[in-house]
Amino acid sequence: MRMRKKPWAKDMIASRTDCVISDPAEHAGKWAQFSKSGEVRVEIGSGKGDYWINMAHMYPEIAFIAVEKSIDCAAISLKKCLDDTTDNMKLIVDDAAKIDEWFAENEIDVIHLNFSDPWPKKGHTKRRLTYKSFLDSYRRILKKDGLIIMKTDNMKLFEYSLVSFSQAGWYLRDVSVDYRRDEHPEDAITEYEHNFMELGQPIYRAIWCQEAGS
Amino acid sequence: MRMRKKPWAKDMIASRTDCVISDPAEHAGKWAQFSKSGEVRVEIGSGKGDYWINMAHMYPEIAFIAVEKSIDCAAISLKKCLDDTTDNMKLIVDDAAKIDEWFAENEIDVIHLNFSDPWPKKGHTKRRLTYKSFLDSYRRILKKDGLIIMKTDNMKLFEYSLVSFSQAGWYLRDVSVDYRRDEHPEDAITEYEHNFMELGQPIYRAIWCQEAGS
Repeated sequence: MRMRKKPWAKDMIASRTDCVISDPAEHAGKWAQFSKSGEVRVEIGSGKGDYWINMAHMYPEIAFIAVEKSIDCAAISLKKCLDDTTDNMKLIVDDAAKIDEWFAENEIDVIHLNFSDPWPKKGHTKRRLTYKSFLDSYRRILKKDGLIIMKTDNMKLFEYSLVSFSQAGWYLRDVSVDYRRDEHPEDAITEYEHNFMELGQPIYRAIWCQEAGS
Repeated sequence: MRMRKKPWAKDMIASRTDCVISDPAEHAGKWAQFSKSGEVRVEIGSGKGDYWINMAHMYPEIAFIAVEKSIDCAAISLKKCLDDTTDNMKLIVDDAAKIDEWFAENEIDVIHLNFSDPWPKKGHTKRRLTYKSFLDSYRRILKKDGLIIMKTDNMKLFEYSLVSFSQAGWYLRDVSVDYRRDEHPEDAITEYEHNFMELGQPIYRAIWCQEAGS
């Protein structure tokens, strides 16, 4: 579903200097400044921002950097947190293909991929956020003991991702083919995710790490 | 569900010298003698034998070695193929914990794990056929380009196995969280599997290999 264009989006983004980072490359190596604990997490493809906002509020000691390339989606995120931003939530409105420029090596603790665009056509494989070129970037910016946590409702994207990570030498740390069969109060539920749960459709989740046993 | 004891089981097994291998260790390194193509597959935990019998008939040029420790299950398998065994189907009635004794290094092309006992209790983890000690044996007896193909209806066993193989350094070649959503005429369906399909429950399948890209 393509979103209707928001004429107010650009102004909203420009005005929100409290959390929009317009020059992310300038912050490479320095993102921990937004984190009380030193832990930095990045959500790639933050969509309308529910997960980002909820997690940033649930874990005020961790920096949550959202990346969203759609100006309209990013603007909606910002509208949702007009009066309740916290210092640990930052938003980059740009294409994740540039993440290598924005983050230093070994800088990130966790990368979240939530309900990413499945890009189902074979010709669009390279656009999937779990395509091998993205995995190379993730490996570069993640700390050695860093994690990638993926959630999706899309069976095909999930299957593709399991194979893609494995073939690129990542280790699976945990996996669930019906993540919400159990309670996970530690992990925010978005409206989007809730809709799938209502329909009784499974949510798939996987966690990868770079070293066996970690 | 524990099976009722079959008083005729032992005699059935003893009488079926056409396909029961009573001294498997004597055949180590020589299993390809039962294969026209040289390809040798082993099904560990063949249960009542439907998959073993069907596959052996579908692929007469491949040797199918079934392993089943339950005397009663093994006897039922044999009853199902009283008059239609082929030279490529052999059965070992013993505990798979001994597979290292039965097969030489690099002897097997494919190991099939079909609807294995999930051993759900934590204290029984070591009995699961995808526990790391079994994976070590599989690696030893498989050819370098050999595959392990697992099918199960058990979500927890599937999740456990994905992590277990990954942590042991295996590569995922293919995975499906709903294998029977597509037609697979190349792969036999057992009655047991069919029951799950009728109930609309997913069948999980994964294929692992020892080298990336293979």
